[in-house]
Amino acid sequence: MLVRIATAIALVSAVPVFSMQESLISESQESTAEQLIEMGLASDSGYEIVRSLTTEVGPRLGGSRQEARARDWAVQMFTELGFENVRIEPFEMPYWDRGAISTSIVAPFPQPLRASALGGSAATPQGGIEAEIVFFESFEALRDFDGSLENRIAYVNDRMISAQTGAGYGPANQKRRFAWLEAEARGALGVMIRSVGTDSHRFPHTGMMSTPNDGTINSGTHSDVAIAYIREEHPDYAENRMWSSIPAVALSAPDADQIERIHESGESVTVRLSVIAGWRGSRQSGNVVAEIPGRERPEEIVLIGAHLDSWDEATGAVDDGAGVGIVTAAAHLIDQLPRAPRRTIRVVLFGAEEVGLLGAFAYARDNSEDIGNIVLASESDFGAGLVWSLASGTSEEGTRFMDEAQQIIAPLGIIRGDRASNGGGPDIIPLAARGVPVFRLNQDGTDYFDLHHTPDDTFDKIDPDSMAQNVAAWAAITWLAAETDVEFRTQDE
Amino acid sequence: MLVRIATAIALVSAVPVFSMQESLISESQESTAEQLIEMGLASDSGYEIVRSLTTEVGPRLGGSRQEARARDWAVQMFTELGFENVRIEPFEMPYWDRGAISTSIVAPFPQPLRASALGGSAATPQGGIEAEIVFFESFEALRDFDGSLENRIAYVNDRMISAQTGAGYGPANQKRRFAWLEAEARGALGVMIRSVGTDSHRFPHTGMMSTPNDGTINSGTHSDVAIAYIREEHPDYAENRMWSSIPAVALSAPDADQIERIHESGESVTVRLSVIAGWRGSRQSGNVVAEIPGRERPEEIVLIGAHLDSWDEATGAVDDGAGVGIVTAAAHLIDQLPRAPRRTIRVVLFGAEEVGLLGAFAYARDNSEDIGNIVLASESDFGAGLVWSLASGTSEEGTRFMDEAQQIIAPLGIIRGDRASNGGGPDIIPLAARGVPVFRLNQDGTDYFDLHHTPDDTFDKIDPDSMAQNVAAWAAITWLAAETDVEFRTQDE
Repeated sequence: MLVRIATAIALVSAVPVFSMQESLISESQESTAEQLIEMGLASDSGYEIVRSLTTEVGPRLGGSRQEARARDWAVQMFTELGFENVRIEPFEMPYWDRGAISTSIVAPFPQPLRASALGGSAATPQGGIEAEIVFFESFEALRDFDGSLENRIAYVNDRMISAQTGAGYGPANQKRRFAWLEAEARGALGVMIRSVGTDSHRFPHTGMMSTPNDGTINSGTHSDVAIAYIREEHPDYAENRMWSSIPAVALSAPDADQIERIHESGESVTVRLSVIAGWRGSRQSGNVVAEIPGRERPEEIVLIGAHLDSWDEATGAVDDGAGVGIVTAAAHLIDQLPRAPRRTIRVVLFGAEEVGLLGAFAYARDNSEDIGNIVLASESDFGAGLVWSLASGTSEEGTRFMDEAQQIIAPLGIIRGDRASNGGGPDIIPLAARGVPVFRLNQDGTDYFDLHHTPDDTFDKIDPDSMAQNVAAWAAITWLAAETDVEFRTQDE
Repeated sequence: MLVRIATAIALVSAVPVFSMQESLISESQESTAEQLIEMGLASDSGYEIVRSLTTEVGPRLGGSRQEARARDWAVQMFTELGFENVRIEPFEMPYWDRGAISTSIVAPFPQPLRASALGGSAATPQGGIEAEIVFFESFEALRDFDGSLENRIAYVNDRMISAQTGAGYGPANQKRRFAWLEAEARGALGVMIRSVGTDSHRFPHTGMMSTPNDGTINSGTHSDVAIAYIREEHPDYAENRMWSSIPAVALSAPDADQIERIHESGESVTVRLSVIAGWRGSRQSGNVVAEIPGRERPEEIVLIGAHLDSWDEATGAVDDGAGVGIVTAAAHLIDQLPRAPRRTIRVVLFGAEEVGLLGAFAYARDNSEDIGNIVLASESDFGAGLVWSLASGTSEEGTRFMDEAQQIIAPLGIIRGDRASNGGGPDIIPLAARGVPVFRLNQDGTDYFDLHHTPDDTFDKIDPDSMAQNVAAWAAITWLAAETDVEFRTQDE
């Protein structure tokens, strides 16, 4: 009855009355989405995919032989699960190798330290370096320092806070991205930072530094911020330089505490540092793609992704084995329905994300003619914690669709998040920059940065129930987006 | 009134009526003990001693230069705190060095593993070994295996359970102590074990193996068990051999899980192992001693101790920096009272505990004429968790004294434990074996084996409030034992 009245009002007035608008999601569609949620909650296939990837491949640094094995693994998995158009889209990339590291305090209290080179770090001269550190409470203190750091090593100490949204990452990560620039510009022999992480274990957190690279800025997940920072603060680097010429390393939290305690006691700290990291030429990486062709509008694509590579010191269970498991299992659930959705679902497992979104940039470059066909995109790359909100950045109609879709996944404990999001996940950045609409199923990241980029990111940290909730939510939203004819793209673009 | 009746009954009957006996602890003594508890709870000196030791010395393996620095640190600390008769009692010891280790799965799924050599491990031949593993669910399965292990590596997988008392340690530790014997006897090239620990982090747990050594048995904290086991099961080793000739290593729990998962999938696992550990001749270690001379019976000694050495991969905060802080701070509180107790309080910081109770055996050997003067002894060596029970192994009168003493520390959350304990802590074993009465303030060990013998045993893991509770309990019991004239030693010995 209400529906009939709403229709009548719509006929009378050209201005839509929000509360009276017809549903964009039909009862039948809602019912199928609910069925997918039920299937997802009962399935362990996301969890089992992470088990398989972390056990049978293990660590898989972008450009490494292990990453090539991961691609073979992914092709086999997609094929066995019955996906179509399974393919590797290869690309060339510069390869950085961690090599070995040795770090210690030599004075006043000799003892070894646990450290990890940051991605892109230069090696020390043979034999290592030994120098006094200059202690900076924060990245800002280093940035604002107007003295010289010649013959010394800059040390940056600020801590990351833990937050459900992961909001502590950006501020704490300034020192990982840019401290090398500030240190090198002041003549330092090297730079050390307290790890960007929220744990207190003896695991350093690695991660890529930001730097001009091939005319773009290689910066992990915050390209625009990195571009702005480097162009404004260090235009000479942006124009002329590729990478740091000094070694840059992260200390584990307990080792950083040790430096801090000695510094606070008034003693100056001398450290020894030997790093054999460096760039080792060009290697091949690739994105692995699989599809469920749409039954009515196969040219229209809902793209869901994760990244296949991991850092080299762990098996990449939460970063991003979990994402690989979640999006693959969600698409596989959809593939088990009696018929395919109207639009094509494309699963993309990006290569070489950790080392600078290289697979994402390659994907956008090599599929540039196809980007206009991507109606909606998202990536799962925030671990294996529970989804708690649905964000989106789409047309008005798309926003209304997502409002309704959230109601369907609300029983999973998911509220409606940001309606003007410009982020669909790190590897979606190059697509979003070209106008592709996005959504994101935001996960609880309270503990994510305990493990992030450490040797401790292993399969035992994955909770199967959380994985199942993720798969359920992804299956429902992905299927609804592929089944609808709602236009997510803003039409005046 | 009740007291007068009790006295009357005592006069009538020669058989003591327990509930009517006079207190062994006077009201004035109780009051001083309560004052020490209050001082202990308000003091951070135990915590600050751990901070100082872990920061200014760091790791301090028995026999190393770092352990020598720890002795200098201890002498300085004791002197500054005003203790008397501060001295180092040196001894010679065989020195084992961990060297470097490299471990990986080479088939079916190549990837690096995180492992640590067990104390006493032999090196691999140069270039390392590569061999298939034979998977044993438990130490018992290896012990009962009647096949050959030639050209293969034995792997032992059983898990340790977490318990407040630490009761899971003994059973799980069989494989660390004795697996090398069983593997070597069957011709294995080496032995790997799942770490003896209760965490799931990528830290292997090291620890000493058990073996005949110098005619005694070197076995960590369970000498008698080790002696019995080796003499009964491997008399040839007990007679003729010193140490393992094969490498023995522990894997972190997540790496052990990896081996287990591959094994359970039906694949055989080939590993590569390179270990450069070995014995490096004789070195000097030492016990550091400090005293509060007794005001009336200075020749009678209440001995409280902890061990000064640690494993080499961490700064030894819970094992046993905490113990050093607890017993030193407790004695220092007593030293701040207006007058010294009647008996002498002797604080002993033992050297080279981890590598086989070497300081404890040296102490008993070099002070053999003095052992009869030790009226009571105990060691704090179970981390920094809260004390929850008071155990003792003394004369009947001593037991009654401890029953009363427990009532005084009960407000700290401490119940009465075992009244026939033969354990006062690892380094007290050689004294207890010579008839020295013991007590123990048992700590909550639920989480202790998360950190035990790992690189993660660092100062950030210490809770200052728990340290203060420990110091309060130790100060009260130690002072009461030193102030009383109760005989703790059983008189017919």
